[in-house]
Amino acid sequence: MAYEKRPDSSRRSERSRTAILDAAMAQVAELGYQKTTIEGIAARAGVGKQTIYRWWRSKGEVLFDAVEMSIEEGAGAVEGEEPALPDTGDIAADLKTVLRATVDEFTDPRLGPVLRALNTEIQIDEALAERNRTRSLEPGWAAYEARLRAAQEAGQIDADADVRTVVEMLTGPLTYRWLFQTGPLTHAYADTLADMTLKAVGRD
Amino acid sequence: MAYEKRPDSSRRSERSRTAILDAAMAQVAELGYQKTTIEGIAARAGVGKQTIYRWWRSKGEVLFDAVEMSIEEGAGAVEGEEPALPDTGDIAADLKTVLRATVDEFTDPRLGPVLRALNTEIQIDEALAERNRTRSLEPGWAAYEARLRAAQEAGQIDADADVRTVVEMLTGPLTYRWLFQTGPLTHAYADTLADMTLKAVGRD
Repeated sequence: MAYEKRPDSSRRSERSRTAILDAAMAQVAELGYQKTTIEGIAARAGVGKQTIYRWWRSKGEVLFDAVEMSIEEGAGAVEGEEPALPDTGDIAADLKTVLRATVDEFTDPRLGPVLRALNTEIQIDEALAERNRTRSLEPGWAAYEARLRAAQEAGQIDADADVRTVVEMLTGPLTYRWLFQTGPLTHAYADTLADMTLKAVGRD
Repeated sequence: MAYEKRPDSSRRSERSRTAILDAAMAQVAELGYQKTTIEGIAARAGVGKQTIYRWWRSKGEVLFDAVEMSIEEGAGAVEGEEPALPDTGDIAADLKTVLRATVDEFTDPRLGPVLRALNTEIQIDEALAERNRTRSLEPGWAAYEARLRAAQEAGQIDADADVRTVVEMLTGPLTYRWLFQTGPLTHAYADTLADMTLKAVGRD
């Protein structure tokens, strides 16, 4: 009977996964990314190291998922649902809403430093980069692109503008300013990027 | 007489500095950034480790200067001169020239991987970040800003556009695409960024 699945096993798995991710966020808040270890997270969550290695390959992956869970909780998102931009009919307002939320994440004293450390890891860890592309960047871009295509269909922005490039013009400068700490990250900056980029696609 | 400066001492210093930077580029091309060491660079340049530590604090700093020398040589730049954008009177053409050159640096098989490794270091090494800001980013932005202000004075782009934000719209998406490998880095992409950004500041 060792391999028989009990009806509550997936619920218990989910509970222990959540406990591990909560422990990871607590650990990194207390010690910083560099000093956080799989051992420390396991001890804090009250599980064995092997439980963590069953689901994650590295500290970077645990923290990636921990940050994701934390952001989704903050946004009231439902796990497994694709992210979407608001659609109030006002493309400028909707872009500003999401860019301002990105500014808030980057400058959040709890999330910001972990996001920064993860971004450094992503640039040298190919598996983590892949996780970031498929789980964060691509769904995020798809959400922007869908909203921009709706604006194209509504005749609010140039129909022939390449929406991927438009997304990069919105998010690239913001990420750059955050990564290289080259200027203040404010809602006003988010708004300026939205307004200027919309001008580039024919909306005055 | 031990401390008397001989007339050729600065020239000899310069020769040994150049030999070290050449050795650093050769070493990193052969071994990659991670396996390159101060010891290896010293041995290759035929100098003692202490000679390197006299001028640089870390491997990252040596390679930063080596890459800078390599780029300046490639551009035919004169050391110590501030960088400047071309000014042919055609702002679109001039921006495309410099953005295309950035694409060429990022995709250069010799420079690209070192630049990538340095960018990772920069995000965790505050002293290297400061070197990057004062020696690379700020002079580079100043060059862009000067060219954009000339275009404003010539009435080619909106006089009230914030030139710093315009620079970030030009360079942010390019750097983002390079860092996160999210799309092809081509001259066509450089041109699109220049054209769309100029549209954002009133030039059709």
